[in-house]
This record gives sequence, structure tokens and C-alpha cells, in this order.
Amino acid sequence: MAYELFYWPTIQGRGEFVRLALEEAGVPYVDVAREPGGMAKMIAAMDGADHPSFAPPFLKAGEVMVGQTSTILLFLGDRHGLAPQDEQGRLWVQQIQMTIADMVAETHDTHHPIATSLYYEDQRPEAKRRTADFLETRIPKFFDWFEGILGRPEPKDYLLGDRISYADLSLFQLIEGLRYAFPKSLARLDAGYPLLAALHDRVAKRPRIAAYLASARRLPFNEEGIFRHYKELDDGLNPGARQSRD
Amino acid sequence: MAYELFYWPTIQGRGEFVRLALEEAGVPYVDVAREPGGMAKMIAAMDGADHPSFAPPFLKAGEVMVGQTSTILLFLGDRHGLAPQDEQGRLWVQQIQMTIADMVAETHDTHHPIATSLYYEDQRPEAKRRTADFLETRIPKFFDWFEGILGRPEPKDYLLGDRISYADLSLFQLIEGLRYAFPKSLARLDAGYPLLAALHDRVAKRPRIAAYLASARRLPFNEEGIFRHYKELDDGLNPGARQSRD
Repeated sequence: MAYELFYWPTIQGRGEFVRLALEEAGVPYVDVAREPGGMAKMIAAMDGADHPSFAPPFLKAGEVMVGQTSTILLFLGDRHGLAPQDEQGRLWVQQIQMTIADMVAETHDTHHPIATSLYYEDQRPEAKRRTADFLETRIPKFFDWFEGILGRPEPKDYLLGDRISYADLSLFQLIEGLRYAFPKSLARLDAGYPLLAALHDRVAKRPRIAAYLASARRLPFNEEGIFRHYKELDDGLNPGARQSRD
Repeated sequence: MAYELFYWPTIQGRGEFVRLALEEAGVPYVDVAREPGGMAKMIAAMDGADHPSFAPPFLKAGEVMVGQTSTILLFLGDRHGLAPQDEQGRLWVQQIQMTIADMVAETHDTHHPIATSLYYEDQRPEAKRRTADFLETRIPKFFDWFEGILGRPEPKDYLLGDRISYADLSLFQLIEGLRYAFPKSLARLDAGYPLLAALHDRVAKRPRIAAYLASARRLPFNEEGIFRHYKELDDGLNPGARQSRD
């Protein structure tokens, strides 16, 4: 039976981290809300379920229902070989995933620092201040940590070494999204993180991921999702500046 | 061998969710950074470890090293009976925990909406705006979800029914922290969530938790942690107001 993924039909958003894992695993799934009548099915599933999610995405896998992006990936990692089977390895991948999730949430808040319930236009000055700090201090702090993992004890193809995990897929998506949102700033930052850039390219070239990215199933980025391009947030800033003064 | 918990020594912070699980489980642990010379040990463990954490808290359990609050709880839940053993039950508790973690992060950002690297005093107007939305729309949305779980299919003692999980302990701490930060607003909200209030009291009265809360191991809340009381953020607001107009 195909898995059923429930997520907003017009954005990559947090659902994209799940889609990438499903695509890499090569398992059949239905992106429910993108089917005719799917939105109504999604709303009904949120209200009526035994294990209702606070918000999409959530996944129905036969009798199992699971929500929260990182928890869905924990489940898929075990089922489809996208995480190690030993306790330390499983926990480590999930720990990295949680750190990616933290950075995703901070990225969202660059354009919505005051309230999700308000438009971006109603919190633009605050968004500029928050984005400046994000580019100056937060991206370098997170990227240093990821680059360090990829470089120890020697440069590795993936976070765990030679095998891919769901955290690699998510890290690809995070880089992809940040480059979309902040092209100028990322261009200046990227050179300092060669292993992260190589990981991004390596994931993009995996046969199933490459096929997915070229398909209509991959939605384009837009200004409704997590990664949004607002020119004024990317201009005139100094990524990594504060970090380098430390 | 006693577990070693690594966390900032002067605040409850995110480490408190781990402390509560360790206390309820009744397992011996050392709160490393609160021992003489402990801060240096913590910094060394962050830099040198095979599985370095992005930030505290992290836990060393024999050969296992694990960071990120929710991932530490996943580990402790399995080891010490603070989560069910079946797949759906394990995932469900972790999914609830992730939703609690989301609310904790949003609570932090009420006083730091612009940047963690700035003082609260440097982002006070933004903090007021963000807190107003948090009290008006976010707390009711989260509390409705938790109350709903506790009430379905009939009122339950704990999130899973009659057995406690690590998510119950974290939910207790979340309510405790919100009441500290926003006493006026929470007093007006609490009445609408009788099951949540009862869960809070039930957890507080568990023998090991009650002993812990009365001990010197329990640090007081203060204005360095996640839950901070700034009078001006709690005054004159209208918790739940927007929600009730929907």
C-alpha cells in the first residue's frame, strides 16, 4: 500500500524534507493534498485522527500515523535504510536532523520575526534586523558545525561517511533553500564551506533525487514557503561579519 | 555508571526537560557543569566529541553520546520506560514532544524576536509585538491541541492514558514556565484548560518529581533562561482574544 503524505499542496515547505526521503527510498506515495479533493481529506485527517498532528506534514503508513517532520524522518529512516540500525548511529542522525530543523525554523523567522499570523509586509523592519543577524552570526555558526562533521576525521562524502542518511537529504534542501532566499549572501558564504557545497551537489546527482528534481512533483520555491526571496533582505548585508570579529 | 548531563549550570533552560526525565526515572546522574571545574569539562566535551552537540544540553551515557533535548528524551524514554515500546506509541510521544519543543522555541522568541546575540533591552518593542501575538493566538492554538489529546476519547490522567511519558514531564515544565513568565495572562487562560492544569498538578505530586522540586537540584526560574518574567510583556494583553473571534 502506498504511503499517504499530507502537506500543503502549493509549497515545498517542511513537507519537502519528507518528500526527499520518500523519493530517495523509492517508495510509492500519494501527495494527498495535491490530488483532486485532497485538501478536504487533509483537513479531515487532522481533525479526526487518533494521532492528530498539530500541523502538516504528517504521514499515514498503513496503520501508523506520524507527524512532525523530524519524527516522520525517524520513522522512514528505520523503515527504508536511511539511518543506521545501531543505537548511537540512529540517535546521531536524529540529533543532526533536529539541528537542521532548528535552522529551518530560524530561516522561517527571518521573514516572520513577529507573528506567523501577520503578512511579511507588516513586519518588514523587524525582518531586516532579524535577517541581518541570521546572515552575520547564525548561518556561520550552523554551517561551521555541519562542515566540521563532514570534515572529521577526514573529508567524507556524507554526514555519516560513505552512506547517505535522511539528514543528508535535509541538509541538501536547507542549502538549496538558503541559496534561493539569499543568493548574494550565500554566494559570499559558500566558498568557505567546500564540503557542504560538495554534499549538496552529491545529493542532487543521486539518480532518484535528480529524477525527482527534474519532475513536476518538485514544486518551485515561492514566497509562500519557508525559503522566500525578498531582495531587500539579501542586499547590503555582511554575512559572517560578526563571527569573523570574534 | 552514572549518566553525565551537560548543561548551563545557572538556568533551567532546555536542560530542565532532561533533568525531569532523569529524576522521574530515578537514575543516578551528574549535572556536570554544576560541579567544580564542570564548565571546562562541558566546553571540552563540545569541542572534542565524536558526536559533538551544536549546543547544550547533551548526555553521556556510557559509550553513548546524545544531544538535542527531544533526541535525549527519545533515548531516555526507551531506556527507562518513559515511552511505550510499540512503534506507533513511541512515535506519538516523540511527535508530541516535538510540538512541545516548538512551543518552547516560540516562548524563547517572545523575549528575543530579533537575535539571541542581542540583549532583551535592545529588542523590547519587537518583544512586545511578538508576545502579544503569542498570548493572543499561539498559546490558545497549542493549548487547544494538548487539551484535545488529554480529553479524547474521555478525560485521561496523562497524554497516553494512565501511564506517564517523558512528554507529560515536559508539558508540566512548559506550563510551569509559562505561568512564571506570564502570570496574569496565564491566570486568565488557565480556566479554559482544566485537563492541562490537572496534568500539571498530577506530575508535580509524583513522589520523585515532588522531591526534586523541593531540592536544591531544582534551580529557580530567572531572567537568563527560556521562561523570563518581564512585567511589561505580561501587562495589558488579551490572551486568547483573536482566537475567540474566529
